[in-house]
Amino acid sequence: MPQHIVQRYDDELKKLSTLIVQMGGLAESQLAAAVDAIVKRDSKLAEEVVQGDAKIDALRNQVDDFAIEMLARRQPMAADLRVIVAALRISSEIERIGDYAKNVGKRAVALNQAPLVRPVHAIPRMAALVQALIKDTLDAYITDDAAKADAVWARDEEVDDLYTSLFRELLTYMMEDPRSITPCTHLLFIAKNIERIGDHATNIAELIHYTVLGEMPKEDRPKGDDTAYAVVNVPGGQR
Amino acid sequence: MPQHIVQRYDDELKKLSTLIVQMGGLAESQLAAAVDAIVKRDSKLAEEVVQGDAKIDALRNQVDDFAIEMLARRQPMAADLRVIVAALRISSEIERIGDYAKNVGKRAVALNQAPLVRPVHAIPRMAALVQALIKDTLDAYITDDAAKADAVWARDEEVDDLYTSLFRELLTYMMEDPRSITPCTHLLFIAKNIERIGDHATNIAELIHYTVLGEMPKEDRPKGDDTAYAVVNVPGGQR
Repeated sequence: MPQHIVQRYDDELKKLSTLIVQMGGLAESQLAAAVDAIVKRDSKLAEEVVQGDAKIDALRNQVDDFAIEMLARRQPMAADLRVIVAALRISSEIERIGDYAKNVGKRAVALNQAPLVRPVHAIPRMAALVQALIKDTLDAYITDDAAKADAVWARDEEVDDLYTSLFRELLTYMMEDPRSITPCTHLLFIAKNIERIGDHATNIAELIHYTVLGEMPKEDRPKGDDTAYAVVNVPGGQR
Repeated sequence: MPQHIVQRYDDELKKLSTLIVQMGGLAESQLAAAVDAIVKRDSKLAEEVVQGDAKIDALRNQVDDFAIEMLARRQPMAADLRVIVAALRISSEIERIGDYAKNVGKRAVALNQAPLVRPVHAIPRMAALVQALIKDTLDAYITDDAAKADAVWARDEEVDDLYTSLFRELLTYMMEDPRSITPCTHLLFIAKNIERIGDHATNIAELIHYTVLGEMPKEDRPKGDDTAYAVVNVPGGQR
């Protein structure tokens, strides 16, 4: 964070980053709770996640109002302007992470009404990876650590790989047992939501890189999710 | 748009909104082309959509760099500040619309390798609704028409309803014929992508409301998509 002679300005920037970290921590725990609701088949917890998203939305409004007020009042230049613009963008990314966690919560409720299917076991593993990405992103944010942010950015590929293998497993599972189609469809979307949360964590990592170094990362992120192109055949050939 | 004594400032705001409309128009035609690629089973066109997304990303960078430069140079207050902050946010929304259109393009390639499934016919209808939402949103943006923006915001419910009925149709279809599972899964995600594009159009409509009237719409948007909670049973009961 840039240093200023005016102490109050530093206090305001500090308040902005504290709100962002608070928002990010909340989004991370929303994801954790949603996945817990799946593992424990706990629909009450899942509904709490759905309701809990409003807190993230409220924080987002607080961040944005405060950032816009700072833009108007402080008329910042250069590094300060970057910090405040980045805060606006990061709050939007975290808000989406919250939306995805909320959707996982909703789908957990539906999953709990259907028979248990085996591929569900991949979800907590994928979520643990993504939670670590969020945590490290927030750490990189408070410490202005561009190298740490870049590391997060590269690690998202693991999440994509896990998602790709789960996607194929789910399709095969559905083909073998039509009764699994409803729960597996929800698992497909849950896995996709978690994969998207990983993408938003890398977007935040890019914004940290931009805030600290003044430019967006040049190279394209390695992208491991090719499922949009995937064709999975019915096991045992044509039926 | 606010009027200024300084002609150059007005020119800059005009340039900003022109870039936004150009970006939005491109996103709309990317969606149209992706859906065309599905209907005509044209993988070459689908690949063009995938490649074409880079143009939207480049425009986004142009909008953002220009908006941040204006914030630094013009130190805007009140209405001008809102216009510039809204441009930053709208460019982010359009960039995501572009990402979803690109994903539809990718999935069109996969769809073309699988047998044709009947529910594909619902996609162009859903896309036509969403394209109209994008078009009207862009019209509301250039004319500063908050009422028109609010109308878009309410109309997204139709898209959600279409998505919900397609979601159920696809699940039933998969249960009846396991060979349709791969194409129907891609259709599920295509439909979800189009539904999400509708959500982003309503987000832009909210931002227009904010720019023109100085505050975000108070009430929550009517939400018609309940598929996250959906449980669809195997036709003819347990198998």
